[in-house]
Amino acid sequence: MTLAAFLGPAGTFSEVALLSLDLPGCEPLACTSIAEVFEAVERGKAELGVVPIENSIEGSVTATLDALAFDTSLEIQRELVLDIGYALVAAAGTKLADVTAVVAHPQASGQCRRWLERHLPGRTVGAANSNAEAVQTAVATPGIAALGPVLAAEIYGGEVLESGVEDYAGNQTRFVVIGRGIAPKTGHDKTSLALFMKKDKPGALLMILSEFAYGDINLTKIQSRPTKRQLGDYMFFVDCEGHVDDPHVRLALDCLRLKLREVKVLGSYPNAR
Amino acid sequence: MTLAAFLGPAGTFSEVALLSLDLPGCEPLACTSIAEVFEAVERGKAELGVVPIENSIEGSVTATLDALAFDTSLEIQRELVLDIGYALVAAAGTKLADVTAVVAHPQASGQCRRWLERHLPGRTVGAANSNAEAVQTAVATPGIAALGPVLAAEIYGGEVLESGVEDYAGNQTRFVVIGRGIAPKTGHDKTSLALFMKKDKPGALLMILSEFAYGDINLTKIQSRPTKRQLGDYMFFVDCEGHVDDPHVRLALDCLRLKLREVKVLGSYPNAR
Repeated sequence: MTLAAFLGPAGTFSEVALLSLDLPGCEPLACTSIAEVFEAVERGKAELGVVPIENSIEGSVTATLDALAFDTSLEIQRELVLDIGYALVAAAGTKLADVTAVVAHPQASGQCRRWLERHLPGRTVGAANSNAEAVQTAVATPGIAALGPVLAAEIYGGEVLESGVEDYAGNQTRFVVIGRGIAPKTGHDKTSLALFMKKDKPGALLMILSEFAYGDINLTKIQSRPTKRQLGDYMFFVDCEGHVDDPHVRLALDCLRLKLREVKVLGSYPNAR
Repeated sequence: MTLAAFLGPAGTFSEVALLSLDLPGCEPLACTSIAEVFEAVERGKAELGVVPIENSIEGSVTATLDALAFDTSLEIQRELVLDIGYALVAAAGTKLADVTAVVAHPQASGQCRRWLERHLPGRTVGAANSNAEAVQTAVATPGIAALGPVLAAEIYGGEVLESGVEDYAGNQTRFVVIGRGIAPKTGHDKTSLALFMKKDKPGALLMILSEFAYGDINLTKIQSRPTKRQLGDYMFFVDCEGHVDDPHVRLALDCLRLKLREVKVLGSYPNAR
């Protein structure tokens, strides 16, 4: 039996993402942090891991990017994009009018604030460490409702009082599957890179973009990021179209390797779009 | 009396940042969200606001960037960089050995996880909506300790059991002061921009960087960001050296305005470094 590690506990959006991959014979293994997902795959406890990497409202998931850039030799094998919808969940039989308090991860309550103000005004909003913890608390406590994925309601025996309670439609999270080695080329691939600059070299980014432009390689993401030493000491995360086995991508990376401190390939994998 | 809005409640790192500005005759006004800080300044309830914009570990604070880019006509007046240190706080007289549980904002517990595992193994770590809420809970509950700024311990009458409990040294947050209008030129300024692309125009970023390079303008940050409509529909946040009243910065922006969908100046203000 193959284990697939995910950012747990059971019922998180990471598990929703894992289940949507529909991997036969693959059992989910809940981990308590993104770092633990990486560790489970590195130590061979799990065959692969599923972690969030970018959200359309919150932006990049820095813990995942940093683990890929600094801490691991694992690579991105696959990506998938999931619509993030929150449900209001409580113990079976609860009505909306019975709800005296709400519990949620601070990010979830932030994303549903207007809905809560409109439909549950004046209720205190307590904090939870995860959406799943919130749902477990709500199911066990009469009068308390939680924000979380519908999957968590199913897993923990809660009732969905209302779904789609998020303030913004179109909230999506991109998840990545991490594992060993580069995924084979499919012809519609994407490559994620961490580019480490030499010290304070003006024009470095212009040079980097020129190398990609010369190879007609489209960039789909670029983000400067302070390295962990100090704010302002930058590196870049770049996603580009193509596979590291494509000659024009390989050429661009070879040229960059001659000039940058380090070019780390975080993975080449099929583009989800 | 002038009011300065900050991301509250009392005792947050945003209040630490505000107090470090040392504005005479300026009373702090706690707000419950970043959006509320912007609203307080827009409606004239407060003269200025202090919000976090970037952390050296967590990355950009998307709520602040998005408020500046999409929702407000306020501008960044000033920036400051604060060292983020967490203290373990409990009711007066508590010893480390008395601590049976910890309460913290999920981000704080994430940043102190290794310290907690080493010094308080096996204790449950409950969630709070803010560092200040965590400290208030701990001060009111025997045996519970919280993670938070030393200022919160002072404000809520807690005792610092241990300071500097964060796992990484060098954790810094950049805060910005928001208000009306562009700050006057000082000669060592920085300009923050939101650049909105025309639809799927390959080479746009190379062109943007060329305009800055032509004016010898150093970029200190660049970040592509999905607009709120869909992941992959990008804009850029750019910080550059110089003031919008500098002729070479003005020229670069005028050239960009001719080609991009929108160039929004988020502020020109003295560089904190």
